[in-house]
Amino acid sequence: MKKFTSVKDIGDLKKAVNEALEVKANRFGYKHLGSNRTLLMVFFNSSLRTRLSTQKAAMNLGMNVIVLDVNQGAWKLETERGVIMDGDKAEHMLEAIPVMGSYCDVIGVRSFARFENKNADYNEEILNQFINYSQRPVFSMEAATGHPLQSFADLITIEEYKETTKPKVVLTWAPHPRALPQAVPNSFAEWMNATDYEFIITHPEGYELDSKFTNGATIEYDQNKALEGADFVYAKNWAAYTDPNYGKILSTDRSWTINSDKMKLTNNGRFMHCLPVRRNMIVTDDVIESDRSIVIPEAANREISAQVVLKRMLESL
Amino acid sequence: MKKFTSVKDIGDLKKAVNEALEVKANRFGYKHLGSNRTLLMVFFNSSLRTRLSTQKAAMNLGMNVIVLDVNQGAWKLETERGVIMDGDKAEHMLEAIPVMGSYCDVIGVRSFARFENKNADYNEEILNQFINYSQRPVFSMEAATGHPLQSFADLITIEEYKETTKPKVVLTWAPHPRALPQAVPNSFAEWMNATDYEFIITHPEGYELDSKFTNGATIEYDQNKALEGADFVYAKNWAAYTDPNYGKILSTDRSWTINSDKMKLTNNGRFMHCLPVRRNMIVTDDVIESDRSIVIPEAANREISAQVVLKRMLESL
Amino acid sequence: MKKFTSVKDIGDLKKAVNEALEVKANRFGYKHLGSNRTLLMVFFNSSLRTRLSTQKAAMNLGMNVIVLDVNQGAWKLETERGVIMDGDKAEHMLEAIPVMGSYCDVIGVRSFARFENKNADYNEEILNQFINYSQRPVFSMEAATGHPLQSFADLITIEEYKETTKPKVVLTWAPHPRALPQAVPNSFAEWMNATDYEFIITHPEGYELDSKFTNGATIEYDQNKALEGADFVYAKNWAAYTDPNYGKILSTDRSWTINSDKMKLTNNGRFMHCLPVRRNMIVTDDVIESDRSIVIPEAANREISAQVVLKRMLESL
Repeated sequence: MKKFTSVKDIGDLKKAVNEALEVKANRFGYKHLGSNRTLLMVFFNSSLRTRLSTQKAAMNLGMNVIVLDVNQGAWKLETERGVIMDGDKAEHMLEAIPVMGSYCDVIGVRSFARFENKNADYNEEILNQFINYSQRPVFSMEAATGHPLQSFADLITIEEYKETTKPKVVLTWAPHPRALPQAVPNSFAEWMNATDYEFIITHPEGYELDSKFTNGATIEYDQNKALEGADFVYAKNWAAYTDPNYGKILSTDRSWTINSDKMKLTNNGRFMHCLPVRRNMIVTDDVIESDRSIVIPEAANREISAQVVLKRMLESL
Repeated sequence: MKKFTSVKDIGDLKKAVNEALEVKANRFGYKHLGSNRTLLMVFFNSSLRTRLSTQKAAMNLGMNVIVLDVNQGAWKLETERGVIMDGDKAEHMLEAIPVMGSYCDVIGVRSFARFENKNADYNEEILNQFINYSQRPVFSMEAATGHPLQSFADLITIEEYKETTKPKVVLTWAPHPRALPQAVPNSFAEWMNATDYEFIITHPEGYELDSKFTNGATIEYDQNKALEGADFVYAKNWAAYTDPNYGKILSTDRSWTINSDKMKLTNNGRFMHCLPVRRNMIVTDDVIESDRSIVIPEAANREISAQVVLKRMLESL
Repeated sequence: MKKFTSVKDIGDLKKAVNEALEVKANRFGYKHLGSNRTLLMVFFNSSLRTRLSTQKAAMNLGMNVIVLDVNQGAWKLETERGVIMDGDKAEHMLEAIPVMGSYCDVIGVRSFARFENKNADYNEEILNQFINYSQRPVFSMEAATGHPLQSFADLITIEEYKETTKPKVVLTWAPHPRALPQAVPNSFAEWMNATDYEFIITHPEGYELDSKFTNGATIEYDQNKALEGADFVYAKNWAAYTDPNYGKILSTDRSWTINSDKMKLTNNGRFMHCLPVRRNMIVTDDVIESDRSIVIPEAANREISAQVVLKRMLESL
């Protein structure tokens, strides 16, 4: 595997899930693969789960790990050719990225949407520079438009907890005090569309996601209707995608918060969220603490999705 | 060992010191214990000695180490149930802590007293949340009310340097420009009380520590009298504990600074301090640089106390 | 090797280069040397290449690595004896350094010139305190007046790319918007003077470097004349060294920027720079992107120079 940014990079999903479950049962069984191999994790944004789970996955595989926290204020990368670099950007990505590549075997990159320029975000300018110039396999640790390690972990989790062969999975928008990127819902939609699950997205009008990701999914503006009979409820906030509101908060309507009344509409559904989660905005205390909440095993599977991706990259070196 | 926050957790002190000396003589003799095991070190506060010595100890044991610096400004944990999380706290401890636990085998936590709420500090709210929710063995890397890795290192050091079977050990308050927590003197008192040493605490009136920790120790308000015949002088500043002055500086009286005249009162005593130390506030240059100062070997023993605790936790997994 | 701060510490240059090429061809062939050995990297200043390449080199050798980022604001070291430490400096170097040394086997230190006190900078006060008090082998990861790991990597790179036995190497000043230390040009001059290359330094008047480093090199104020027939062009900015202008920017004259016209004066010369580089200040896009630019392999050799230094230090333990 030379890059991992989309569901397309993982190939056959059944095979990928089986490999994940195999890795989960035998985490240290592939340590020879990472011997004398180094993972460089580059963070342009802060991280808790991704930082810890990806390091753990790499160490399970016997890799060395170097973590680089790029402080956006202190170390800005120039991205355009022809600029006279007499301002605050100390280095051009055309030097920085191949140099980083020269000190490692695999690179993970976290670079969120900035909501300053929709094209720059949706062209994944930072991530793609790493793919184009590092000469190393590159995987997304959440980029501007996708978070495939999260979606792969979500898929593994659904496969572990599903009680029917074709579960009904509902992705629901929920309110949040800050404007959040669409990376998680984009990827979740993309991955769910690649399964044979029944997949429905519900959100207030105006919160339509990029059809590149949601293509094929049913959109239902009535949350209660969407939740009927759901086996899995995946709650997440995101800011508006469509113009002219890109990056804006259009609603903080707490009637969209997932509470126990809404869960009663489901088929004794499981509650999921990528975390971190704002309690009593996204979901009430009682729902997230209930025995139908699987947010902790879902987060624990981040180690497994990362390990499968790293394993495949190591195998391809 | 499932937790390490107090002298009670270490069991028989003679046995613990013997184990420490054995580990010190053969640091890499237990590397098999840490194979495929990961230590997560969570810092809510800055650290030099603890950060380095605990990493070193874990690596001596063959463990993988992940360091997480929680920037208090950037990533605040909500601790109360029922709160609508629409403010600056992005994640609830009820999610964050079990997730951290899922990526590691052992957790170390540093979380100082904040002097905002005495009950919150003395109930060790942060540390106890890790103990209760992480599902992993947890050890204190200095918490609000104790610093047992320091006290265990202090005990090892005294055992190495003592010239009589029952040395006289004096813990003396000394001045400092900032308000410091009571964690180090609390733990030192607790550990010294668990030995058969002669143990005396001296401080200005108003600086009485929590009797939960000092119980059994002699309190002497006359520093010179306390120092008479001392084999070990342990200097440390702390802010007031007793109400209504909790967290306040009551004195910066430099007549309490340990100088060579005061050391002359002792039985050619050894000078100890946990470091970092303010020279010429806590202790004069000549005393800390004298051949009776053992602050450097004392700090070096932090590696050993951490290694014994980690070794026992690994043995219990 | 007990310290590495200067070309004098590396001994015979031919032997050092041969060892570097041997290490480069067999990076993991010396892993036994670092077993149970720990490198402590102490950064008083930010770093990209040095941070990554030195970690990589240490891991190639099987060492454990601990990285300590000293936040200058948060943790200031007192350096003078006799001071009453009642201000913002929490610890004296006389304690901090031996303690750091006690937790590791080898120490790397990055500590830039501050341009506050020329004597303090040129006496390498911070680096020398580590050498004097840590009781461990210490190497410079760029100090106030030198950057020998960079110069050693530069030498290896020139040896790999040279097409004549005695190449002409030109170090040229180039403009930059900020005042930069002389560490890189000082070391480069020192190392080039130790070879049998033809070595010329060119810069505007007023930018003369310390003759301790440039001694023996030809100084030519006419950049075009200096570049004639050059096999290697090493561009770098630095602030003034000579009094009363120490640390000041005397020129931002972009006629000194290396462009393709200037490169035409050379003997089809190779372009070098230590990076990070300000494009179109130091060098134009077309020159740095040309096939005569060797800045990326030059940076990649930072791993090799660090590995030779660490290897020798490990061999001497």
